Amino acid sequence: MFRSSTFKAINIKEKFKLFDDHWSPKVIGELNGQQVKIAKVKGEFVWHDHKGEDELFYIIKGTLKIAFRDKTVELKEGEMLIVPKGVEHKPVAEEEVWLMLLEPANIKHTGDVKHELTVEECEWLNG
Amino acid sequence: MFRSSTFKAINIKEKFKLFDDHWSPKVIGELNGQQVKIAKVKGEFVWHDHKGEDELFYIIKGTLKIAFRDKTVELKEGEMLIVPKGVEHKPVAEEEVWLMLLEPANIKHTGDVKHELTVEECEWLNG
Repeated sequence: MFRSSTFKAINIKEKFKLFDDHWSPKVIGELNGQQVKIAKVKGEFVWHDHKGEDELFYIIKGTLKIAFRDKTVELKEGEMLIVPKGVEHKPVAEEEVWLMLLEPANIKHTGDVKHELTVEECEWLNG
Repeated sequence: MFRSSTFKAINIKEKFKLFDDHWSPKVIGELNGQQVKIAKVKGEFVWHDHKGEDELFYIIKGTLKIAFRDKTVELKEGEMLIVPKGVEHKPVAEEEVWLMLLEPANIKHTGDVKHELTVEECEWLNG
């Protein structure tokens, strides 16, 4: 069944006003076993991959670089990239970036890598 | 396996310059069995539901009203709504709206309803 709250428009930028921590994705929606998350990030994340899950990055504000082992892709506001499963990547944000993520529910954002940045389970963002 | 083209930034607004037809979603990405689509819409769509698929609407430009049997939700630029499976809805755009959709691959956009607007299979948008 569904949460009746999903029948309200979700204003993405407004949701970003509800938190300030970095590298800690918040869930704002769920569909077909996938979760829509938003995160503020700044600095370098850790190299990782997701063995079984593709991951979509969509930039709401700022410029995110996603390093791969053989190239780096720069994503600006309004741009997106899908990172296929099994592909190692490392997000880097020189300045704070606001991004939207789409990935399967309960994916670990650091993949199989255990790191001080690892969040075991992303919380739903209320409000 | 993946298309190597997915390793380029996809600029959503640029993609909208590549077509003009209404109510004909174009696929711009795929992940975990879901497709990311974009569409230009204007006017009233047809009442329908999707028996087994949730559907995400995200507004890139304009204002979209989504009518449900008991209420109507208005979505402005930067806002999103997830319509759970089995819930009848009818999108209405008084002026042209650019939207991004996320839904399972091969979903019919009119659900089980056969209509002159039904597109049997959405095309990938090249370019």
